[in-house]
Amino acid sequence: GATYKVAVLPGDGIGPEVMAEALKVLDAIEKKYDVSFERTTANVGGAGIDNEGKALPDSTVEICKASDAILFGSVGGPKWESLPPDEQPERGALLPLRKIFGLFCNLRPAIIFPALTGASSLKEEVIEGGFDLLVVRELTGGIYFAEPKGIEGEGAARTGFDTMKYSDAEVERITHVAFEAARKRGKKVCSIDKANVLSTSVLWREVVERVAKEYPDVELSHMYVDNAAMQLVKWPKQFDVMLCGNMFGDIISDEAAMLTGSLGMLPSASLAEGSFGMYEPSGGSAPDIAGQGIANPIAQILSASMMLRYSFGMIEAADAIDAAVEKTLNDGYRTGDIYQGTASEKKVNTAEIGDAIIARL
Amino acid sequence: GATYKVAVLPGDGIGPEVMAEALKVLDAIEKKYDVSFERTTANVGGAGIDNEGKALPDSTVEICKASDAILFGSVGGPKWESLPPDEQPERGALLPLRKIFGLFCNLRPAIIFPALTGASSLKEEVIEGGFDLLVVRELTGGIYFAEPKGIEGEGAARTGFDTMKYSDAEVERITHVAFEAARKRGKKVCSIDKANVLSTSVLWREVVERVAKEYPDVELSHMYVDNAAMQLVKWPKQFDVMLCGNMFGDIISDEAAMLTGSLGMLPSASLAEGSFGMYEPSGGSAPDIAGQGIANPIAQILSASMMLRYSFGMIEAADAIDAAVEKTLNDGYRTGDIYQGTASEKKVNTAEIGDAIIARL
Ligand SMILES: CC(C)[C@H](C(=O)O)[C@@H](O)C(=O)O
Ligand SMILES: CC(C)[C@H](C(=O)O)[C@@H](O)C(=O)O
Repeated sequence: GATYKVAVLPGDGIGPEVMAEALKVLDAIEKKYDVSFERTTANVGGAGIDNEGKALPDSTVEICKASDAILFGSVGGPKWESLPPDEQPERGALLPLRKIFGLFCNLRPAIIFPALTGASSLKEEVIEGGFDLLVVRELTGGIYFAEPKGIEGEGAARTGFDTMKYSDAEVERITHVAFEAARKRGKKVCSIDKANVLSTSVLWREVVERVAKEYPDVELSHMYVDNAAMQLVKWPKQFDVMLCGNMFGDIISDEAAMLTGSLGMLPSASLAEGSFGMYEPSGGSAPDIAGQGIANPIAQILSASMMLRYSFGMIEAADAIDAAVEKTLNDGYRTGDIYQGTASEKKVNTAEIGDAIIARL
Repeated sequence: GATYKVAVLPGDGIGPEVMAEALKVLDAIEKKYDVSFERTTANVGGAGIDNEGKALPDSTVEICKASDAILFGSVGGPKWESLPPDEQPERGALLPLRKIFGLFCNLRPAIIFPALTGASSLKEEVIEGGFDLLVVRELTGGIYFAEPKGIEGEGAARTGFDTMKYSDAEVERITHVAFEAARKRGKKVCSIDKANVLSTSVLWREVVERVAKEYPDVELSHMYVDNAAMQLVKWPKQFDVMLCGNMFGDIISDEAAMLTGSLGMLPSASLAEGSFGMYEPSGGSAPDIAGQGIANPIAQILSASMMLRYSFGMIEAADAIDAAVEKTLNDGYRTGDIYQGTASEKKVNTAEIGDAIIARL
């Protein structure tokens, strides 16, 4: 059978604990399907700083380069918060990884599992039956990386500046991803911009409209980012795929994720051209509950499933993991973060819910 | 008594209807207090385009220049949506007005009136007892106005670009407003930035911290904008004053406004140095219900109250209007947008709720 090389970067906080469960799931997949995952563990984030002097050690980059995909845990914590921004675990690891590996496409699903509508801060009537949207965020361009960027001048005239920028080719590339994704889902793309103010957005909108012509079966709409931030709160079900630039995608995907009320459940994928990708939970490293074995590993397990789907083309195995997670939830298994105290629920710890998922594979 | 000159710009959609009620309130204030408001009505938005060829006609600018404050209705509608972005009613009127009059400071309260918690899409337990936060948004700088900005190049390399920029002096000025406001409220400022990615935000954060030293009685915190978009959904009561740059303030203030569920209730102020200001509802022109006399005029009336408070120093009269609005709501008066169908409510139209407010002045 095939062999895939996986760089395993557990990181900080709950990262190692939830990663352990995802690796158990990969073991189970190896047994069930004729495949093997050759895993190499490396430091990242605070663990990188503490052990090798920086958030993204060179040795970690080498290991990632020698791999077919990166399975990423989570990084950050109070210990490293007073470092300068670009040395901190999150920023210092994520931005270089995205740039080095050309991870231009960030897929961030925001799903409410019907079993968990109670966890959302939205009213039952707003989210009845759950919702399921996908933010497709451009990840290597826009105001995150464009130059010039810096601080100049003295005294009251001292000025900080950044450049937002997108080329036709960059917008075209990410737009295709959004439309291809929409084709396999609800067949609607809503492109988020601020074309009434930003020239970058005027170009963005033009290119999106041009590319959309190649997908007559997918419905395109445009929405200003301020309105999108409102509409998400008002009626999240109106969205299928939301296509965003780097900065708007950062904000909109986090808002959408929080609306589900179950951050511990949401995976994400950051894809390069070709099959390379990095997969990580949408939530943070939750230092407050780290080391207690009670964190929710589902986002990490679903990240592994996305890896099988997008980097290794193992659709069947990915579907099997997703179904096992859903079955586990339907059977009432809950870690503390999603436990609502009803009679049909069983409160379990990190390893127990991992085992329950594997048993259902 | 004093005389104040007010430029009245009703605009489009429900603008004229709700403005009529705000003007009735000003009449009542004239009778009750020894003051007169000399009003001049001018075209703006779609009305400007249709009657004088552009969203902000020169004659309107002249009238505003000859006034002590601008009372603005709302602009926009399907009729003008196919115009180029910078000729459209909203953008074409608002951005030049902000620039011409140096309206650097945008105050956007997001309040849930305890009587109206039912209108929010948030769960009762998240917003129990209502919430009350104030977004202080910088309005004449940042990525909205900085140069260079444009579209350049050909084919796949064609590129749209914008510049985000803030000087020390600009940040200092708006930060003082936020801290002064916090002093009169909950004594907390949360400054919103993206200092892990943007140089503009690094400078922003430095200046905010420096200015904060002059307000030892006010608590300062910082939050990344993506996290702020999440925290607003999770627990809006954690915020008192949110201090934002132009773009983040646009997004965050709209999200916060929608969380209240009563956009038709929220006024806003855009202030220059000195006493000049422009006052307008946070909601839009609602073309779908325009002309029916059923729109909610409360945001427009509270905008007039903000005008008395900030431009004319008429604190007592402003407090009286705010109290009359609250009393009217407590007495059960509701326009359709906030009517929940309970026995203690009286469903009324635009003019009736205006009259009820005036009766309680
Ligand atoms: C850590 C930070 C640089 C990063 C981003 O803004 O992209 C994070 O918020 C994310 O969304 O992955
Ligand atoms: C119309 C638009 C330019 C404007 C803005 O983005 O500032 C509007 O959204 C607002 O918030 O007043």
